[in-house]
Amino acid sequence: MLVKNMSESKIPRELHLKIAKEKHEQLLTIMKELDIDCWIIFARSTMSIPDPIMELVVVGDIVWKSAFIFTLKDSKLTKTALVGNYDVINEEGKAIWDKVIGYKEGITEPFKKYIDEINPKKIALNYSTDDVTSDGLTYGMFMIISEILSDHKKKFTSAEKIIQKLRGRKSKVEIALVTKACELTKEIYANIGSQIKVGMTETEIQRMFHDEMDKLRVVESWQRNSCPTVDAGPDKEIGHAGPRPDGKVQKGHTLHYDFGVKLHGYCSDIQRMFFFGKEEEIPEELIHAFETVHGAITIAAEFIKPGVKGYEVDKIARDYVLERGYEEYGHALGHQVGTKAHDGGALLGPLWEKYRDIPKGLVEENMIFTLELNVKTKNYGYVSLEEDIVVTKEGCKFLIPRQEKFITIE
Amino acid sequence: MLVKNMSESKIPRELHLKIAKEKHEQLLTIMKELDIDCWIIFARSTMSIPDPIMELVVVGDIVWKSAFIFTLKDSKLTKTALVGNYDVINEEGKAIWDKVIGYKEGITEPFKKYIDEINPKKIALNYSTDDVTSDGLTYGMFMIISEILSDHKKKFTSAEKIIQKLRGRKSKVEIALVTKACELTKEIYANIGSQIKVGMTETEIQRMFHDEMDKLRVVESWQRNSCPTVDAGPDKEIGHAGPRPDGKVQKGHTLHYDFGVKLHGYCSDIQRMFFFGKEEEIPEELIHAFETVHGAITIAAEFIKPGVKGYEVDKIARDYVLERGYEEYGHALGHQVGTKAHDGGALLGPLWEKYRDIPKGLVEENMIFTLELNVKTKNYGYVSLEEDIVVTKEGCKFLIPRQEKFITIE
Repeated sequence: MLVKNMSESKIPRELHLKIAKEKHEQLLTIMKELDIDCWIIFARSTMSIPDPIMELVVVGDIVWKSAFIFTLKDSKLTKTALVGNYDVINEEGKAIWDKVIGYKEGITEPFKKYIDEINPKKIALNYSTDDVTSDGLTYGMFMIISEILSDHKKKFTSAEKIIQKLRGRKSKVEIALVTKACELTKEIYANIGSQIKVGMTETEIQRMFHDEMDKLRVVESWQRNSCPTVDAGPDKEIGHAGPRPDGKVQKGHTLHYDFGVKLHGYCSDIQRMFFFGKEEEIPEELIHAFETVHGAITIAAEFIKPGVKGYEVDKIARDYVLERGYEEYGHALGHQVGTKAHDGGALLGPLWEKYRDIPKGLVEENMIFTLELNVKTKNYGYVSLEEDIVVTKEGCKFLIPRQEKFITIE
Repeated sequence: MLVKNMSESKIPRELHLKIAKEKHEQLLTIMKELDIDCWIIFARSTMSIPDPIMELVVVGDIVWKSAFIFTLKDSKLTKTALVGNYDVINEEGKAIWDKVIGYKEGITEPFKKYIDEINPKKIALNYSTDDVTSDGLTYGMFMIISEILSDHKKKFTSAEKIIQKLRGRKSKVEIALVTKACELTKEIYANIGSQIKVGMTETEIQRMFHDEMDKLRVVESWQRNSCPTVDAGPDKEIGHAGPRPDGKVQKGHTLHYDFGVKLHGYCSDIQRMFFFGKEEEIPEELIHAFETVHGAITIAAEFIKPGVKGYEVDKIARDYVLERGYEEYGHALGHQVGTKAHDGGALLGPLWEKYRDIPKGLVEENMIFTLELNVKTKNYGYVSLEEDIVVTKEGCKFLIPRQEKFITIE
């Protein structure tokens, strides 16, 4: 049973290989769209430093220096794994490669030979200043591949557009998995809601979440000590901070969580707000703040659709918050969710330096985003909500019912 | 209990921060030795792409672009964390930094200002062509830091020597943790030994290991589907390959495992060989092979001590194997073990292309290495053993008793 528990946090192998096959199929279309005829994932010891895209197109770890080479020629995609001899059996067993080539002493010669023969027009590599999940190539590995493929160095280009489309365009299986993670998150919220009492500390409440996760055999979407964040009362800055052992739930105060679970490798990321007291006791100030956050999510959800740009969606919510008299929130309105809680690619964010060009990315069908923001009240701290949506042909759909008002606990 | 199980695979936070403090103390000596006055760990979203050294000197993940800056001046080490505003509380709570600086919109300005003021002679960054665990800086992040610190770019140098010494010089706490992981590995081997029967498949046997790990609340040292590797009989190539559902244990055959567990974040990595039959039934060919592998480990263990080079230790074992009439093994004789099963730094390996300059590294006191090799027999497949040792002032010590002969199962 323990084994089962632990493995349910990961994608079961058969499902994982199925997703990889779906992604390989998408890749043919994407590489054509982008007019890139060669993409190389160049990695080593991925247990120590994983390249985030490998879980979607390679599946599992490799030890020795390896090159996973996707080449497009005459509308046909060829997929080759060039790996250390000890990794050959593993790669062949996956049945996702057209060719598996092993080497013993060094990758240089077979790698150079293979690329010389193909002689591609472009070579996309996994580096990106803007998008974390497209930046899996380390600088040391970049130096090595620059040396091996020195004759082709001018062809090097960032693979970020390939990776963003590949991660962003969720398959049916992927949407189903994120939705299921959201449903389990909702279930945990409901279970916790019935157990919480005035006087409990943030630390105690977080422990309850962890117990519920273990019961349902799921793991945290991000680092456990801040998943969930638990913010009781008005005195805490909202952030990725751990719970306070002396932060207690009190009557007349709010309670806020930022929480997500991972099931079969796919994440949820949802925030909820509680109020301790009767519904009619909620102060006007809190209601106004809640309606502002809720309203901003509503207009963003009504606006978003394939073809709009990330920063346009953020702006409509941000302007709304400012109009309603609050300070603007200090982060992006929404990020993508997938195998990572922050799944990279197009971001619904403002054009701030730290987001680089990412908010200029296009929203596409089947992308899954969070819609999240907070406003600060004078006397009651922050009010913050977060929902998960999937972009449809015409607009978007909430993956699970959204929060419509404070959940009250007496 | 489930919570406990899962958290025991990780280092408990207090212990983790204690190790970080030990490492910060070592750093003062190391940076003096290497005459490097500034080391910067530059990272973002380490849940997606971790920099392997961060677990030892930073502890925990960060979301926004962050710079962890160690500067040496007048024999004093100053430790500064420059992080996104949402990560400030987390960093301050660790009490391992002299200064925590937060930023909201972008890291460029405060980062540039801080480094301009220090104006170091050298700036060590985490890139390395040779050493995986020193290569945590991605190429995208290298481009960003090159832009921010463009006035200092000529000072950039690889931090691999800092990192190798920091990882390699195990503290007392670290040696105790690896030893404990080895002892639990031994316990699991013993428990499995009493359950195995002729006719079982590799897949069944691997499942038994996973059950034992769960009972002892430890996790695998490397990817679960090949931890342990289980190799029954003569037909399988030794490697990091998964178990075969049709690979059965038979009388007169050998059984081989490569296995390790992680306890509180520290790994073991040990191979053992079994024979199915009575001791007197072990074929001469297998005994000769076992004695060769065992003997090679013995002479390597007798040779190793602080000051020798990695490839010298490998050579003495490799030559012995060749002298005894076998093909040489296709890998290094030993790698370091720590928070990773392959912990980086000096390697006891041959001077092959794939190992680059790593085997030229010096062996130092308190480094923990594996000693491992295999030979191939004509009729019975591979014989392979692996032990874990710690380097002492005068030589080395096996962390747990080594395997002296085939373990027989009738």
